[in-house]
Amino acid sequence: MSWLEKPVKALLLDISGVLRDGDQAIVGSLEAFQRLQEIGIPFRLVTNETQVTVQKTVEKLSKLGFTSISPSLIFAPAPAVATFLKETLSRAFLLVHPNVLPEFDGIETSDPNCVVVGDAAEHFNYSRLNEAFRVLLRLREENKEMQLYSLGKGKYYKEEDGLCLDLGPFTAALEYATGADARIFGKPNPVFFHAAVQDMKMSPDEVVMIGDDILGDVGGAQRAGLRGVLVRTGKFRISDENHATVKPDGIVDNLLQAVNLIMSHYN
Amino acid sequence: MSWLEKPVKALLLDISGVLRDGDQAIVGSLEAFQRLQEIGIPFRLVTNETQVTVQKTVEKLSKLGFTSISPSLIFAPAPAVATFLKETLSRAFLLVHPNVLPEFDGIETSDPNCVVVGDAAEHFNYSRLNEAFRVLLRLREENKEMQLYSLGKGKYYKEEDGLCLDLGPFTAALEYATGADARIFGKPNPVFFHAAVQDMKMSPDEVVMIGDDILGDVGGAQRAGLRGVLVRTGKFRISDENHATVKPDGIVDNLLQAVNLIMSHYN
Repeated sequence: MSWLEKPVKALLLDISGVLRDGDQAIVGSLEAFQRLQEIGIPFRLVTNETQVTVQKTVEKLSKLGFTSISPSLIFAPAPAVATFLKETLSRAFLLVHPNVLPEFDGIETSDPNCVVVGDAAEHFNYSRLNEAFRVLLRLREENKEMQLYSLGKGKYYKEEDGLCLDLGPFTAALEYATGADARIFGKPNPVFFHAAVQDMKMSPDEVVMIGDDILGDVGGAQRAGLRGVLVRTGKFRISDENHATVKPDGIVDNLLQAVNLIMSHYN
Repeated sequence: MSWLEKPVKALLLDISGVLRDGDQAIVGSLEAFQRLQEIGIPFRLVTNETQVTVQKTVEKLSKLGFTSISPSLIFAPAPAVATFLKETLSRAFLLVHPNVLPEFDGIETSDPNCVVVGDAAEHFNYSRLNEAFRVLLRLREENKEMQLYSLGKGKYYKEEDGLCLDLGPFTAALEYATGADARIFGKPNPVFFHAAVQDMKMSPDEVVMIGDDILGDVGGAQRAGLRGVLVRTGKFRISDENHATVKPDGIVDNLLQAVNLIMSHYN
């Protein structure tokens, strides 16, 4: 069954690999975005980007031509976990990129009782990983729960110079070393998709997620009850079209093709 | 049943945490080692140490007072994998500590068709991990097997300044990122224990392994058909005495107590 047979009442869009690729707008994505706004279909941007703040993401998109995106349209894991940390009065060891630290303003970091893993990229080093490991092991030895929070579970993403390890492998390393079981904020956690869906006052089966990550975007959306459409941009690999466990509801060359299909199907 | 009820015809000893702790001989271990040599019980040293060469390990032990240990008594994963790489004409990306590179003399490193993970410690950084990741992903895209060789699967070990991540978590990170299934050289691979046992012309059930790693030493030895005795030195933690999956054949305060028990039982 085509992903277009049921009404597409709203969209969730990934940012990296769908709207932009590094510092470039993906071919057709500006036009696609323009059309989405013209037809007035509700959308939210759901990103596992954790190297920068949401405010910075808005600014970067604006520079590429994606104007009029307010921060409230963007769902990202760092603000979600920061809210959770405040609600639970947690003290966090933040294994995150320095650029995203402003999202954690006001979080206590002394005597940590949890570890938060973001995409620290080149700031993942042996010394910092050891520190995070020791926090978890200390909790275990104190017979406390090893609270390990991960801002996603992505395996890798695309940068200008090639594919790069995402935060997932580093979370897996800490899980292997300690036996902790990470709690995932962000995609593919259904809670994350549902927050964005509910924000549009939709139900999951009315919404289509469009992304370049076969597991995090497509598989995650499907498990949350949405349709998942894969784009052949960003980190897409030919092998994703015959993935062992995830079968996309649709595959399109890029966002523009997806938007054109939606428009031609409903107009 | 006590681990002493069946004859103890030979021993395998871990080095770090049994003979020495960092740059110190463990209390009683020099005396224990002396007695072992006096009673003439055959032994081999089986170590997952991959930060230095076997030659350097011999020199370090000698400085601590463990003299008359020839390199041929030491079983370590790096020489084992180097031999394997030569036999299979492999070209390796070596994610290892610079100090152990001499073991890999003569191994081709250009256009790699495999990745070798050793305990690179502070040389585990984002850039090197990305390089290793890209080698594996290239192999996958060329429909070749992702050859990932790991010099052990230890979770952590003890250094002067505290517990440190071992190579296992970094191997787990690469497995998570790529889907590769690492082949383990060194403990707890039964092949590794058996090589040392056969070198003494013994059968596994005649040999006792003494180590401070509940999984790698004790559990590994037991799966290889040996008895596994845990020492309360090195990285031993109280919680190891009630481990969820591994029940040691014996637990002793240190190597000296183990040797004294053997001597009193058979004299």
